[in-house]
Amino acid sequence: MVPTPVVLGLDFGGTKIALAVSDLSGRRLGTRTIDSRAESGGAAEAMARGLTAAHELLAEVAPGQELAGVGAATLGIPYDDRVELAPTFPGWDDLPFGRLVRDGFPGVPVRLATDVKAAAAAELRWGALADCDPGLYVNLGTGLAIAIVAGGTVITGAHGASGEIGYNLRSAGDVYVDADERTILEHVVSGQALETTGSARLGQPVTAADVFTMARTQPDAAVLTDEFVRELAMHLANLAIAVDPVRIVVGGGLVRSWDQIEAGLRRALDAAVPFPPELSVARFPSDAPLIGALALGVEAAGVVLGAEAFA
Amino acid sequence: MVPTPVVLGLDFGGTKIALAVSDLSGRRLGTRTIDSRAESGGAAEAMARGLTAAHELLAEVAPGQELAGVGAATLGIPYDDRVELAPTFPGWDDLPFGRLVRDGFPGVPVRLATDVKAAAAAELRWGALADCDPGLYVNLGTGLAIAIVAGGTVITGAHGASGEIGYNLRSAGDVYVDADERTILEHVVSGQALETTGSARLGQPVTAADVFTMARTQPDAAVLTDEFVRELAMHLANLAIAVDPVRIVVGGGLVRSWDQIEAGLRRALDAAVPFPPELSVARFPSDAPLIGALALGVEAAGVVLGAEAFA
Repeated sequence: MVPTPVVLGLDFGGTKIALAVSDLSGRRLGTRTIDSRAESGGAAEAMARGLTAAHELLAEVAPGQELAGVGAATLGIPYDDRVELAPTFPGWDDLPFGRLVRDGFPGVPVRLATDVKAAAAAELRWGALADCDPGLYVNLGTGLAIAIVAGGTVITGAHGASGEIGYNLRSAGDVYVDADERTILEHVVSGQALETTGSARLGQPVTAADVFTMARTQPDAAVLTDEFVRELAMHLANLAIAVDPVRIVVGGGLVRSWDQIEAGLRRALDAAVPFPPELSVARFPSDAPLIGALALGVEAAGVVLGAEAFA
Repeated sequence: MVPTPVVLGLDFGGTKIALAVSDLSGRRLGTRTIDSRAESGGAAEAMARGLTAAHELLAEVAPGQELAGVGAATLGIPYDDRVELAPTFPGWDDLPFGRLVRDGFPGVPVRLATDVKAAAAAELRWGALADCDPGLYVNLGTGLAIAIVAGGTVITGAHGASGEIGYNLRSAGDVYVDADERTILEHVVSGQALETTGSARLGQPVTAADVFTMARTQPDAAVLTDEFVRELAMHLANLAIAVDPVRIVVGGGLVRSWDQIEAGLRRALDAAVPFPPELSVARFPSDAPLIGALALGVEAAGVVLGAEAFA
């Protein structure tokens, strides 16, 4: 009997690298997560550890099985020689991302995607956006980004950069000011922003999750989360007006505090949007980019194996 | 010889009703424009005058020829029994729009669309958005709206309401406030808004075009157009960040003042958007909705005549 081929999915995030191996139908054979910044070697070292962990996982859960495709999702916009728009992970932008992934798995077809677009693709294919045309995926993680799905696909944009609302202007006063000279939306509305602001204003080092937990009982923390939700709501409401989505689906690490985020967003959408969309947590709130990466791996494998492999 | 069938396009706008008759290939046989509010009879009277003018135009340019299809574009979102989101034309929302158009041309197939989406469809098929995936169409007319094109089609939205950015929130202070209790974007950035504000602040009744003309020499008028362009730029920049369009194409009556609008938008997009899109005037800046309506009429005719009629 010929061993079944497998695919590998990689998701390089600002705080963790997630890995999974599945068969060609997407059935998971094994998963692993490592810290992006556990050692101080920076971007190249994190990438190297991710690839090593991937080989270890393959040896463990799929020994002797052909690796038929690799899907790699990342923060930022991946190219073979660089990553654009990945300021939250120092050094990541200079990484020859696509080349390193290809070199890690010689001869295996590789697909690259921005993590949030991979996540939206996973939700569109198997998750909470399956019946949505159009729909919006929102990632509340270390950074902030969205993806628009329409006509059964994720809109990638002319330069692969659609959905990067972390760069949004926050007021008319920001107009004509370069992005590096103004406070972009992601500097106020993101996990990293809440961690930074929370640590500065609450007098102790805190994570974004800590700020939400403290906000349940402490007014000074509640002010921060109220501001966070209000400003996020403004931008999601304007996006909902522009797109008129069936549903807004939210994923990313901050959905662990969803019960403190949902009511504000719901109220804001109901007040602002002519036809308020549904609002829900993603089906794969914490690992949609990884599942999307597996889907990309399956897609990459298809080029080699042909459609009959998926029958 | 059997006379060639023709189609009728109607575009009901806030200030004018435009009519055209074409053959099935879109070749224009005649065009007419009437004032929406020439008499004080309100919405129903304007509709009736539009339909009468259409019959007169048909009798004049296509006597004895079969009317094979009607396309009707309108401000707002048209239904058979009402028009949603058309606040700039009092009474228009209560008009049984689709029913009146159908009653005007018994037995002829009719297609309805929001004017801005019809315009975007015309630009996508024959105009300045032909090579854009994705692209943005912006209407600067009596009101304010956009349309997103992607995958070769116009995104209509879950309720036909995508692109209605006239309802946008202008600041975080607007969050949680109902649309009728806040100053929506269209109350600041639209032809009607500029007319209202200009007349109040310049001490004489002026049109939006007058304000732009006066702004060339008068500082008090220039303040108004600067504010107008700045706030428009904020919302277009955020849309460009979300969509990453190849090009933003601008139509509507205010493009007559394009030389006073373009530079500010260009500068704002360059400063704000990671990959700044191209920016240009529409191919059909003043009658894209009418051309889109003709395309809808041709589409409607297709259902009856079959594809062979277009060969």
